[in-house]
Amino acid sequence: MSDHVYKQIKLTGSSTKSIEDAVSTALSRASSTIKHMRWFQVVDTRGHIENGQIAHWQVTIEVGFTLEN
Amino acid sequence: MSDHVYKQIKLTGSSTKSIEDAVSTALSRASSTIKHMRWFQVVDTRGHIENGQIAHWQVTIEVGFTLEN
Amino acid sequence: MSDHVYKQIKLTGSSTKSIEDAVSTALSRASSTIKHMRWFQVVDTRGHIENGQIAHWQVTIEVGFTLEN
Amino acid sequence: MSDHVYKQIKLTGSSTKSIEDAVSTALSRASSTIKHMRWFQVVDTRGHIENGQIAHWQVTIEVGFTLEN
Amino acid sequence: MSDHVYKQIKLTGSSTKSIEDAVSTALSRASSTIKHMRWFQVVDTRGHIENGQIAHWQVTIEVGFTLEN
Amino acid sequence: MSDHVYKQIKLTGSSTKSIEDAVSTALSRASSTIKHMRWFQVVDTRGHIENGQIAHWQVTIEVGFTLEN
Amino acid sequence: MSDHVYKQIKLTGSSTKSIEDAVSTALSRASSTIKHMRWFQVVDTRGHIENGQIAHWQVTIEVGFTLEN
Amino acid sequence: MSDHVYKQIKLTGSSTKSIEDAVSTALSRASSTIKHMRWFQVVDTRGHIENGQIAHWQVTIEVGFTLEN
Amino acid sequence: MSDHVYKQIKLTGSSTKSIEDAVSTALSRASSTIKHMRWFQVVDTRGHIENGQIAHWQVTIEVGFTLEN
Amino acid sequence: MSDHVYKQIKLTGSSTKSIEDAVSTALSRASSTIKHMRWFQVVDTRGHIENGQIAHWQVTIEVGFTLEN
Amino acid sequence: MSDHVYKQIKLTGSSTKSIEDAVSTALSRASSTIKHMRWFQVVDTRGHIENGQIAHWQVTIEVGFTLEN
Amino acid sequence: MSDHVYKQIKLTGSSTKSIEDAVSTALSRASSTIKHMRWFQVVDTRGHIENGQIAHWQVTIEVGFTLEN
Repeated sequence: MSDHVYKQIKLTGSSTKSIEDAVSTALSRASSTIKHMRWFQVVDTRGHIENGQIAHWQVTIEVGFTLEN
Repeated sequence: MSDHVYKQIKLTGSSTKSIEDAVSTALSRASSTIKHMRWFQVVDTRGHIENGQIAHWQVTIEVGFTLEN
Repeated sequence: MSDHVYKQIKLTGSSTKSIEDAVSTALSRASSTIKHMRWFQVVDTRGHIENGQIAHWQVTIEVGFTLEN
Repeated sequence: MSDHVYKQIKLTGSSTKSIEDAVSTALSRASSTIKHMRWFQVVDTRGHIENGQIAHWQVTIEVGFTLEN
Repeated sequence: MSDHVYKQIKLTGSSTKSIEDAVSTALSRASSTIKHMRWFQVVDTRGHIENGQIAHWQVTIEVGFTLEN
Repeated sequence: MSDHVYKQIKLTGSSTKSIEDAVSTALSRASSTIKHMRWFQVVDTRGHIENGQIAHWQVTIEVGFTLEN
Repeated sequence: MSDHVYKQIKLTGSSTKSIEDAVSTALSRASSTIKHMRWFQVVDTRGHIENGQIAHWQVTIEVGFTLEN
Repeated sequence: MSDHVYKQIKLTGSSTKSIEDAVSTALSRASSTIKHMRWFQVVDTRGHIENGQIAHWQVTIEVGFTLEN
Repeated sequence: MSDHVYKQIKLTGSSTKSIEDAVSTALSRASSTIKHMRWFQVVDTRGHIENGQIAHWQVTIEVGFTLEN
Repeated sequence: MSDHVYKQIKLTGSSTKSIEDAVSTALSRASSTIKHMRWFQVVDTRGHIENGQIAHWQVTIEVGFTLEN
Repeated sequence: MSDHVYKQIKLTGSSTKSIEDAVSTALSRASSTIKHMRWFQVVDTRGHIENGQIAHWQVTIEVGFTLEN
Repeated sequence: MSDHVYKQIKLTGSSTKSIEDAVSTALSRASSTIKHMRWFQVVDTRGHIENGQIAHWQVTIEVGFTLEN
């Protein structure tokens, strides 16, 4: 692990169900173009409200992935 | 959306089940007196412990709502 | 409550299922050696990614417990 | 000034023109219900984008006002 | 405690004597309109200076109180 | 809005005139390669000084845009 | 002092009287098991309210002490 | 630039017009005693309110300048 | 007040008695060379420990004062 | 410099030797695809431990580079 | 790694030579009582000055280690 | 130490070699006009890049020194 260089990008995923599912949505979309994703950190947890209830969660993460040589 | 003024208030909701449910509890109580709630942001996630287990979650949110003209 | 002294320690628990479960894992392990745990605060929410999906959550908490006299 | 108690509330105002104008919009709306506003602090400066250009600014402020005896 | 919803407001109290007294002043004023205040957190400690000496302390707190059902 | 994934990038724009104009400069440059920009947040406001006067403003923003499916 | 290693722990002490007294309470309890405490830093100042008045202060400190060789 | 040492000081300027003008006011006053000012960073943006309107802006900056050899 | 420029400096004062007294000590020393001090903000509260007890408090403040024309 | 737009990206480099070398590793890898890098800021300094010793440093930086017209 | 619970402690190490060496000193001392240390994060970098020169560095780290089952 | 008042100033030093050397450069320059410097804290670590390599480090420190009576 000591000889890798990582890049981190910031993504926001949404879900009507849960915080965990919003993160999955973001990773799922990112995995179509980014290989070698290693870890994420939750940096913001928000949501939209409709009629006094949670309409959907919006969770922002930083995702770290290996830059290939 | 560009001509609205929003107010944000800070609420703490509880739940024995999950973080998501604690937020729902807070919004549910607030919706009885506040109309036009638009979004929330989670600002603190805590919990009480009894007998070495999570007794209930306490989640603090900031809720934004439209001030009517 | 006014005559107690509390100590806070920092723990990280993991779970393949949810943020809530990762906190439970940490408390469960801690309860074998620490009595009188009272509250926790989530201070970091991270996760490991394998094959473009969440492999497991890693949630760091600060746990407060009563120091016995 | 030493015998007053102040309350602070959080407001978000919008403007298509400038940061300063967004703050004015928020204060203008608030002044219809709150007397004795004394100061504000800008805590967040955001904006919406349409067609690659700033559609409107959204500036969040904390406003302090005197609680009357 | 698990079934309550709390609201938090931000107040600034003043005192020529001490930090503790400035907090008391704010709570004293608030208690005339707010029932069921439970806790506070000090978020800012400032003061005014006259003739090179502390004229009065200005302490800002967040106060949590129970929203009645 | 609940089914979108957003990416956020960090840009710094400059202007000899104003903070607002520095943000416009950054968005203008970004719009040539990024479609579907939705919002920005100001995260740093700086400036260069020449001969005791503001030579130009340098404003750093985070820009959120929709990742197309 | 250059050849010592220090450990820092987080404690919360309470007092019905003052912030200073709450810190003393925490240190007093800690000194029964920890030798060579050198310094502390106040990291959180809170309090409980009963009947609209401060019931007791709760002050959290980080305490640094020398690890003996 | 690699062989210079810089000092940073904190100034607050005011203006009835704009944030930009408040920064100019501070720099203008500082330039009468400080040579070789290079850059500034805005660290706080506040304002005073009179009769429900912005009376003047108060903007705090950190100013970096070269220490002459 | 709108036409003044303020400078802020950072001072640390000590006291064996209280936080308030440590601030007084710092202001008292500063007033011998700085005229027109207006306000302060507490930015760090620490202390030294001897024999398991508070030996003295060390409180760091930022002091704002008017720059004369 | 006033007419440039900069982009900032977040990279993590590793080294068994030093913090400085970990930054060099990250820049070295980035320079193969990014032209016109101008500055960096260290935002996180971590390391892995093996057998009670530093195995390698992991330093995260934000790198600013000019967007070409 | 998904089934481990980690504890984090805060240590300060010193060195007359470098930041890296100060971290080594802290880990070296900790390894005599703590097994299974995995990672550290630098949270504060300070130093003492004597005769206008760096006398020694004082670097504070948080160290994570596995709690054995 | 309990009867001293300290002042803290913010300096930035540069070095082509290392973080430690950049701090030395700043202290060295400051020692020609300031007596009784006691400690420093690193508050920002940056660098300039030329041709994809570190051209020089720029380290900002806060330096505390005793105000003489």
